[in-house]
Amino acid sequence: MTVLRIVAGSANPGLAAAVANHLGVEPDGCSLARYPDGELRPTVDKVCGADVYVVQPTAPPVNDHILELLLLLDACRRSRAARVTAVVPYFGYARQDRRTAAGQALGSTVVADAIAAAGADRLIIVDPHTPSLEAVFRIPVKTLTAVPTLCGELAAELPDKAVVVAPDLGAAKLAARYAAVLRGPVAIVRKQRESGVTVTALDIAGEVRGLPVVIIDDMITTGATIEAAVGLLRQHGAAPDIFVAATHGLLVHAAPSRLRDLNLQSVFVTDTVAPKQGIAAIRVCSVAPMLAAAIACLHNDRPLQESGADVR
Amino acid sequence: MTVLRIVAGSANPGLAAAVANHLGVEPDGCSLARYPDGELRPTVDKVCGADVYVVQPTAPPVNDHILELLLLLDACRRSRAARVTAVVPYFGYARQDRRTAAGQALGSTVVADAIAAAGADRLIIVDPHTPSLEAVFRIPVKTLTAVPTLCGELAAELPDKAVVVAPDLGAAKLAARYAAVLRGPVAIVRKQRESGVTVTALDIAGEVRGLPVVIIDDMITTGATIEAAVGLLRQHGAAPDIFVAATHGLLVHAAPSRLRDLNLQSVFVTDTVAPKQGIAAIRVCSVAPMLAAAIACLHNDRPLQESGADVR
Amino acid sequence: MTVLRIVAGSANPGLAAAVANHLGVEPDGCSLARYPDGELRPTVDKVCGADVYVVQPTAPPVNDHILELLLLLDACRRSRAARVTAVVPYFGYARQDRRTAAGQALGSTVVADAIAAAGADRLIIVDPHTPSLEAVFRIPVKTLTAVPTLCGELAAELPDKAVVVAPDLGAAKLAARYAAVLRGPVAIVRKQRESGVTVTALDIAGEVRGLPVVIIDDMITTGATIEAAVGLLRQHGAAPDIFVAATHGLLVHAAPSRLRDLNLQSVFVTDTVAPKQGIAAIRVCSVAPMLAAAIACLHNDRPLQESGADVR
Amino acid sequence: MTVLRIVAGSANPGLAAAVANHLGVEPDGCSLARYPDGELRPTVDKVCGADVYVVQPTAPPVNDHILELLLLLDACRRSRAARVTAVVPYFGYARQDRRTAAGQALGSTVVADAIAAAGADRLIIVDPHTPSLEAVFRIPVKTLTAVPTLCGELAAELPDKAVVVAPDLGAAKLAARYAAVLRGPVAIVRKQRESGVTVTALDIAGEVRGLPVVIIDDMITTGATIEAAVGLLRQHGAAPDIFVAATHGLLVHAAPSRLRDLNLQSVFVTDTVAPKQGIAAIRVCSVAPMLAAAIACLHNDRPLQESGADVR
Amino acid sequence: MTVLRIVAGSANPGLAAAVANHLGVEPDGCSLARYPDGELRPTVDKVCGADVYVVQPTAPPVNDHILELLLLLDACRRSRAARVTAVVPYFGYARQDRRTAAGQALGSTVVADAIAAAGADRLIIVDPHTPSLEAVFRIPVKTLTAVPTLCGELAAELPDKAVVVAPDLGAAKLAARYAAVLRGPVAIVRKQRESGVTVTALDIAGEVRGLPVVIIDDMITTGATIEAAVGLLRQHGAAPDIFVAATHGLLVHAAPSRLRDLNLQSVFVTDTVAPKQGIAAIRVCSVAPMLAAAIACLHNDRPLQESGADVR
Amino acid sequence: MTVLRIVAGSANPGLAAAVANHLGVEPDGCSLARYPDGELRPTVDKVCGADVYVVQPTAPPVNDHILELLLLLDACRRSRAARVTAVVPYFGYARQDRRTAAGQALGSTVVADAIAAAGADRLIIVDPHTPSLEAVFRIPVKTLTAVPTLCGELAAELPDKAVVVAPDLGAAKLAARYAAVLRGPVAIVRKQRESGVTVTALDIAGEVRGLPVVIIDDMITTGATIEAAVGLLRQHGAAPDIFVAATHGLLVHAAPSRLRDLNLQSVFVTDTVAPKQGIAAIRVCSVAPMLAAAIACLHNDRPLQESGADVR
Repeated sequence: MTVLRIVAGSANPGLAAAVANHLGVEPDGCSLARYPDGELRPTVDKVCGADVYVVQPTAPPVNDHILELLLLLDACRRSRAARVTAVVPYFGYARQDRRTAAGQALGSTVVADAIAAAGADRLIIVDPHTPSLEAVFRIPVKTLTAVPTLCGELAAELPDKAVVVAPDLGAAKLAARYAAVLRGPVAIVRKQRESGVTVTALDIAGEVRGLPVVIIDDMITTGATIEAAVGLLRQHGAAPDIFVAATHGLLVHAAPSRLRDLNLQSVFVTDTVAPKQGIAAIRVCSVAPMLAAAIACLHNDRPLQESGADVR
Repeated sequence: MTVLRIVAGSANPGLAAAVANHLGVEPDGCSLARYPDGELRPTVDKVCGADVYVVQPTAPPVNDHILELLLLLDACRRSRAARVTAVVPYFGYARQDRRTAAGQALGSTVVADAIAAAGADRLIIVDPHTPSLEAVFRIPVKTLTAVPTLCGELAAELPDKAVVVAPDLGAAKLAARYAAVLRGPVAIVRKQRESGVTVTALDIAGEVRGLPVVIIDDMITTGATIEAAVGLLRQHGAAPDIFVAATHGLLVHAAPSRLRDLNLQSVFVTDTVAPKQGIAAIRVCSVAPMLAAAIACLHNDRPLQESGADVR
Repeated sequence: MTVLRIVAGSANPGLAAAVANHLGVEPDGCSLARYPDGELRPTVDKVCGADVYVVQPTAPPVNDHILELLLLLDACRRSRAARVTAVVPYFGYARQDRRTAAGQALGSTVVADAIAAAGADRLIIVDPHTPSLEAVFRIPVKTLTAVPTLCGELAAELPDKAVVVAPDLGAAKLAARYAAVLRGPVAIVRKQRESGVTVTALDIAGEVRGLPVVIIDDMITTGATIEAAVGLLRQHGAAPDIFVAATHGLLVHAAPSRLRDLNLQSVFVTDTVAPKQGIAAIRVCSVAPMLAAAIACLHNDRPLQESGADVR
Repeated sequence: MTVLRIVAGSANPGLAAAVANHLGVEPDGCSLARYPDGELRPTVDKVCGADVYVVQPTAPPVNDHILELLLLLDACRRSRAARVTAVVPYFGYARQDRRTAAGQALGSTVVADAIAAAGADRLIIVDPHTPSLEAVFRIPVKTLTAVPTLCGELAAELPDKAVVVAPDLGAAKLAARYAAVLRGPVAIVRKQRESGVTVTALDIAGEVRGLPVVIIDDMITTGATIEAAVGLLRQHGAAPDIFVAATHGLLVHAAPSRLRDLNLQSVFVTDTVAPKQGIAAIRVCSVAPMLAAAIACLHNDRPLQESGADVR
Repeated sequence: MTVLRIVAGSANPGLAAAVANHLGVEPDGCSLARYPDGELRPTVDKVCGADVYVVQPTAPPVNDHILELLLLLDACRRSRAARVTAVVPYFGYARQDRRTAAGQALGSTVVADAIAAAGADRLIIVDPHTPSLEAVFRIPVKTLTAVPTLCGELAAELPDKAVVVAPDLGAAKLAARYAAVLRGPVAIVRKQRESGVTVTALDIAGEVRGLPVVIIDDMITTGATIEAAVGLLRQHGAAPDIFVAATHGLLVHAAPSRLRDLNLQSVFVTDTVAPKQGIAAIRVCSVAPMLAAAIACLHNDRPLQESGADVR
Repeated sequence: MTVLRIVAGSANPGLAAAVANHLGVEPDGCSLARYPDGELRPTVDKVCGADVYVVQPTAPPVNDHILELLLLLDACRRSRAARVTAVVPYFGYARQDRRTAAGQALGSTVVADAIAAAGADRLIIVDPHTPSLEAVFRIPVKTLTAVPTLCGELAAELPDKAVVVAPDLGAAKLAARYAAVLRGPVAIVRKQRESGVTVTALDIAGEVRGLPVVIIDDMITTGATIEAAVGLLRQHGAAPDIFVAATHGLLVHAAPSRLRDLNLQSVFVTDTVAPKQGIAAIRVCSVAPMLAAAIACLHNDRPLQESGADVR
């Protein structure tokens, strides 16, 4: 039987180590040379004949992490790995899944093609921004979800009758998935995005007055969407202790200070992206057990349902 | 300069003729042989060296129409058309863009691959069920929308302050696009789908009591989703004259009688799918002018914005 | 070692069950959802890590069966089957292997490309209309023949010195293969096809007067070709008890009544296509043992010659 | 408008010159370096932006001519030809279109893939051994036939009531095409091929006694098939003056002396293969006018029917 | 005739403007959105139906520039450009053209595949590190050289009898190309590379004592190779005024101070990479005239020799 | 575990037998039919389910050997080999890795594409003319080197302080690899190639007067390059006993007599190409042990470093 190998890219070695630990294997000592001109040259080891899982979320610096992922995949292929699975818990450029103005590219397709061309046989992703991301690929894609993991933590803290709030229409279906687990109602913010950075919330559909709320989203980038939703909720008389939950905590730019200023009860994210240190109220739930269970199933050619992995 | 040719498949020759008429050309006299065993053999004419647009929505019988489309594309390629654009105003299997249970296929990807393999250089679609359908393709896809066309008709009839109602969470973003044109508020039904045919509506987020409403969706298949929404809206005290608008009026099975029994004010659909005859209250708005304008731009290598075409 | 799985499409579940029975395995409980608008959504089970054989002849309704096959193949691939072999005993659109008039498509290539794009690793076919069908594919194709099976049954009933009659020039080489097994002479009808349905026989090359004859062909569709040959043979004084043998008994339209009216001695076909019930004189020989033997060889990576399978 | 260029490979420069002459253009001064170790390096000239037709039948030495063709196609592509059409009047390896024994390759597919990979956009072939050769390709293939050309010459010489004889079952359909033009009956030899070189004829279906005959085939290689047919025809009392016609006169090995010894009336072949000098009774009909007409249509994006080209 | 468009990526807009200026066209006002998380979203304009040249050297930050290039190419394709040529004067990752240790990737192939998959029809490069880089691509590649341009400037300043020095064996063939233009002898340094940054020169083959020298290379990255060669040359008694010439002046890290400390006579580089400001002794020769001439030829489908472009 | 099979093409059956012998297996009894018209039809045996290594250097007659290789690869694929590795110790057309004049092809890419299209999963090559040949392929390529093997033999005979001479600039890096093993200095001939056959040496960089020399190269074709280098060395006073070493001894045309006339001490080549008989002073070192060790590693999915194989 082929050997299982976890290759850790530089984007989130802590997650790779945790996954390997759950699986009872050593993560691969992949080394990464960075040349003075910025070119990367990773070297993989012991992948020959192995069933390899390359763990590399394409979080910021997103372009460096994408190139490193492509080189790692090519290195595994040329070193004669028996099978190469790209484990990309956070998949960058997923928002570029349609053109919203003339002259744009489809970043998600461009990245998907590059990953497939570099030699990935399969892909594992977690809560992609576009639920149909798997349809962009011809290689088999396993889409996992951190919603049950996050709900497990939320359930222990949320007051009864909490309303699940989608901070925009795009999150409405995700809110329904949270609500189904938490057995609560859904409210939806209808926002008008004014630029890439600023956001103005306008309206809220559903009852929140006097009720505890949890704002959910797939990712928190600058925190601007959360900030707008919190303002609107307070305006509409929601209960003061506001919770937030999202799978991917990118938390770039002013996000840490913005979240601190909002005085939130708790912000739950996972470690799909390497966690930032020292941000108050941030609670990190690990997806490592879920990824490990999924990888074990893939390695042993078992269906994923038999694992503890949460499949969307 | 290459000649423009409209090739009409058998799925909606009326639409093809209307498009050709707007463009001032004759639709192609493509003939379709149906063999006794059900095999199709279409023959195209005069496409040699031409810029060809094959008009063939993949409405029911969906599988026959898909195969006919593939054969038409291959025939154009092998007859040395200079360029072949598949015009598929209704794109079947678009809902199969993600796997919702183990063991399923991704029908949208399967059909997309077959269309590309058969030789389409470009694709035109209208209001696909999945907005990111274009990311599944490597060939350029032009996604048009009938929302402005439908809103033009709606605006003349709808009372003031009409609420745009999304009959499920998946339609929330589409409702926002209608609401932006109609300048009205949005309400959203959260439903629980119980089987492929039966639907149970549960709840409604947003105010509808005493207000005129228009239920919108991308397509009406059996009418069950509309029926559930109407029931819920009446339960919540919406104004009695209910409007419905959807791009694709498939209207299969009991849909005609179901819509009649609902006693709706008007049901607006387009002719992306060949219209059914004799269904009360159905009002058909043609997408032919929009398709013709888009084809004119593509043929003349002009950006679509310069046309009257409504691009999503 | 990987597990062997037989996945039965809806085109011929009886054949799949018989094949599975010969192999001592259970056929897979693949379920097929048919949506009200005609879209299909099959679900496969237990194929993860398995060596899967999808049994689906593309007999009428040919387009539905082709789409179902494509979806089944994609489902197996995405469910991480170790290897997927399409078993298509009757391969529709095989006659469209050349263009006989300007403006036509090559249906065989279109279908072949779609099958390969959907994820088939290998293909098994039986007596395709075009002997060189395998050259259209890049995936390995195993072409089996039912001629020895049919000759085994024929030999027990045919009088001595029976002449093998090809009902048109296209069947001449097939007739030679029958004649080699049956050790008889060959006669060939030269016909002029007047339309897709009507056929006029003109002439016969070779001696038939007073001799028993067996008309052979790869498939019987409407029975018109057989009807014309029978008329010509009787005109030329062949012995009254006429036999017919063909691998694929599609028997659409008026075929059953036509064959009955011809008052034939026996018509031998196989079960590559699910047999029609209640047609007098039809004798069905099963290809299940041959398919099972071939699948056993493929599964065990043994050459086919070691099996009892009849390879062309 | 793009310029038309005829690039002459080394396989049949005379044919290329004749084609160019009919089209009123100069053939391209392509030069071919042959290195001492047998490697070829052709250089093309003036193809930049042109509509290029590379004339190179893959006659013996077949492997050298195939490699030269691949290099010519790549050279045209990399020199930025607007469009490259491979004109391969005789297509070698076409007989390897099916595997007749375990362990064989499909030479026709291997060569087709190499041609497509080297950059051909389209292909022109004449009377390929397998009529469905075009289905092996994804690029558009134009299949021409020299049968009308040859029949034109034959008609002037053949006595009335001549029988068209297929020297084996594989030539039966071709014989019917000759017979349709010549308005004569068909007779068919059923042979048993004993080795690659020796052939034993067994039987003849159809009347030939006392009648003038013309043996037809797609190609004459060693002449052994013709020799066997002639022997059988004389045995069956055919009229003494026997005619032969075939598109491709490869005439390798003992073919010239064998044909001379048969004392035939006339042997008609075309110049798809560069004609051998000094073989008695050989009459060469040129396919240059037909190829020129076809190229003119392709260059001007006109359907082939409008030309004088004979399309199968 | 199609319109010529120059699209300027963000890597070297000055070069793009100079190229456009030479061609008498406006460079395209492509805008580049940089999202807070580092994702790029370029938007192209007016490329519909045009013959587009995307100017984007993949100099540092190399990974950002590669992703931007891929997105630009995809945007042009999806905006229906008639033809897209990637103009990548400096091609990053070209040194990764072979694996020098187990477990490595081939970065040049990975980047080439991504560029082709993103939709480039053709590529223009200048003095790539690997002369055979074009063989990695299936799309036509035009390899230009700045050697004549640099020699033109050098010739005006170099003393007579200057020796062209290759600073390592890999530069030996390039030195010969300089020497052929400058009509001087060649000397070659044999070095031992000790790490990615440090270099130790060992030996020099050829006469330099008392002679003026010009060290040449394809690129200057950190300046370490030049530093080692200068030391060795001074040790071997070369004339004091040392010249340096290289196509690509990356000049990262300590390169500027290192070059200053070497007290060189002049360092000639080109603007394939956007020039660094304020580095003493650096003389920048523009490749814009050469690129403009090449683009004019490609746009007009003329051979490159007719232009003033210097083709390798 | 899969069985290891060595398939011997006709180009060098002796090498295949030696490799098989080292591995303790029988070479496969592949038979090769040569048809009278020059078409090849190889038949493979017992490859079903096996891990197959096809040994076929593409030495002269290079085009025949390439076609045979393609057919062998296709035969293995279609016979369901588990994995097919092309072992091409000498890779023809490798010199065509760049275009040195307008209108040329890239022969190395053309052959690489044909090999990949024919079904090779992996490739093994030895000392290719272009060190970056592996970057042309998408399949994993293992590049071995015979330099250590040849140096082992050389070391036993060479006098102390021998100079390694590169006969042209293209061999400079290869000379450095020899010199690193032999611990000697390097001298480099700068030549001007005047035609494909004649060569004029001009100059020599590095000290050779009174010193023993070994001229090295990757291949010896006509011997002209060696002849020119020997003349120059003698002119510059090198010691009289001159050694020559090269991996590939093609030795076509006048090479044997030319080498004899040069009165060399010894000429070391390997058996990558089937050795010519009876050439004085030629010493053949076998690469069979190295190839066998590499194949053993590939078959057992072990890294190559653990073997005794010499990896470049």
